[in-house]
Amino acid sequence: MDEFTLIETFFKTETLPRPDVLLGIGDDAAAIGIPPDKCLLVSTDTLVSGVHFLPEWDAYDIACKAVLTNVSDMVAMAAEPCWLTLALTLPALDKKWLGRFAKGLFDSLHAWNIALIGGDTTQGPLAISMTILGVAEPQSVVKRSGAKPGDVIFVSDPLGAAALAIHVLEKQAVAANDRAVMMQALLHPNPRGDLIPFLRQYASAAIDISDGLSTDLNHICEASAVGACLFEADIPLHPLLQKYAPKEALSLALSGGDDYALCFTVPALKQESLMKALKTAGLVCYPVGFIEENLSVFIENKDKQRRPLQARGYSHF
Amino acid sequence: MDEFTLIETFFKTETLPRPDVLLGIGDDAAAIGIPPDKCLLVSTDTLVSGVHFLPEWDAYDIACKAVLTNVSDMVAMAAEPCWLTLALTLPALDKKWLGRFAKGLFDSLHAWNIALIGGDTTQGPLAISMTILGVAEPQSVVKRSGAKPGDVIFVSDPLGAAALAIHVLEKQAVAANDRAVMMQALLHPNPRGDLIPFLRQYASAAIDISDGLSTDLNHICEASAVGACLFEADIPLHPLLQKYAPKEALSLALSGGDDYALCFTVPALKQESLMKALKTAGLVCYPVGFIEENLSVFIENKDKQRRPLQARGYSHF
Repeated sequence: MDEFTLIETFFKTETLPRPDVLLGIGDDAAAIGIPPDKCLLVSTDTLVSGVHFLPEWDAYDIACKAVLTNVSDMVAMAAEPCWLTLALTLPALDKKWLGRFAKGLFDSLHAWNIALIGGDTTQGPLAISMTILGVAEPQSVVKRSGAKPGDVIFVSDPLGAAALAIHVLEKQAVAANDRAVMMQALLHPNPRGDLIPFLRQYASAAIDISDGLSTDLNHICEASAVGACLFEADIPLHPLLQKYAPKEALSLALSGGDDYALCFTVPALKQESLMKALKTAGLVCYPVGFIEENLSVFIENKDKQRRPLQARGYSHF
Repeated sequence: MDEFTLIETFFKTETLPRPDVLLGIGDDAAAIGIPPDKCLLVSTDTLVSGVHFLPEWDAYDIACKAVLTNVSDMVAMAAEPCWLTLALTLPALDKKWLGRFAKGLFDSLHAWNIALIGGDTTQGPLAISMTILGVAEPQSVVKRSGAKPGDVIFVSDPLGAAALAIHVLEKQAVAANDRAVMMQALLHPNPRGDLIPFLRQYASAAIDISDGLSTDLNHICEASAVGACLFEADIPLHPLLQKYAPKEALSLALSGGDDYALCFTVPALKQESLMKALKTAGLVCYPVGFIEENLSVFIENKDKQRRPLQARGYSHF
């Protein structure tokens, strides 16, 4: 057995048995049975070393982050994540690294009941590209394009902790507990699978906040041909922002990225029943503004002064 | 519009409209309708610059090769390729390169009636990872694992031309016509979609020859828990092998790789009717040996001497 085969065997052993996987890893393609009443959701995300993660990170965390950012895309469509392919490009065969990576991979996949169904291992600069597949009833898929003027904009979680990790950890001393919180936010995003039923029932549009609320809300507005206004005082700031970066707190929450929280819109008439339903479930989401008819996106401060909210999140080039 | 969005828009404009694409590029995930009587086939392939292609190649050819090697995986399962996601990692935004790449991408996709449904563009060392999705009736999927002792081994095309391109083009003078033939084989593999109906009706197992016949036949034997014997005299050598590399001809045909021809097995009782059916369709495939009970893979020369056929195709590490 050559080393190449060894890797594939390594990834093959721990994959979750799902009855809908008709043919798993080890052939030219995997075969899957899709329930006849469901449609298939497909999303691809790439993480490049030095861009999306640092090569010195524990490979366990790199794998978790890769899986969870992909899961986040399924959750944002209100779809159930089911299967994943992994394209792993490695500079060299480092068995210790691979062991940690595989552990993180399977821990994350098992937590979400996702089967690894295939992939490709190649030699080259470290990068991970995953394609995640999920299912949903066609009528319950939540798109970016359904926001309407008057809809309330919600955010699922306090924002900015992952961006804060990047912003402060190299520059200043941080209490060990706080460092752990920031690194957890950066390395182990928490896709809000628990909100899927609420999205299906209440949301007119949704997106996951990967590039920052400002950029991702702009995506909803572009896709829906609407504008929006956020209220500065309502943006849920992660508590550590005030402690470690009070001046940049709002900017990190709006444009820092890497939150993997949800931003979604809800028709105003449904807001009250959503809030009740969330409360009953012991959950909280944050209303942060409104969808408007004009195509601009603004943020309004406590003095009711508006300024344009530019899409200033992460850009690759 | 930032440059990142520009790229996505660039790839969005030319994608093929397929009625089964419920939601295409531009949301957190694409949504697809799968026919209720079909299963889904999924395969991922990565091409890394300097490993699978040279950065100085025309980006048109790089895109074609990436698409066609992915299509080849669907054909080897006897599945119909339908949709594709593209994870493109680029060192910098080179619009001329991107234009050529997009042209090659869409030319190849349109030729196969495949819709680009999503992907990811990231900054980093040049690499292309694609996930191809296809459909087939579950009972007509052809796996690697169905070969039985006594089955005849077939190869779909003369082998070795792509490997010959790599072997000779830098070392010796080659006539312009011959160079064009070799480069065509290397850059524009020709997945045998025309053989899909024959695979479904006759084949017990199939694989596409990406790593070389020796390696890929070994994959069939491992998956099927059988052995095999090839007849040296029956291996279809590409005619240019004799002309430019007579000494290495057999070795290039067996282990050179990059052929993207099919290797498939057919129960002996069905051989005659397959040969007739192929002839009626104006097609040719090459019987090259037999599946055997013992687990070893041999090649037999014209003096009936056997030697082990080692899996000596491309290995990444």
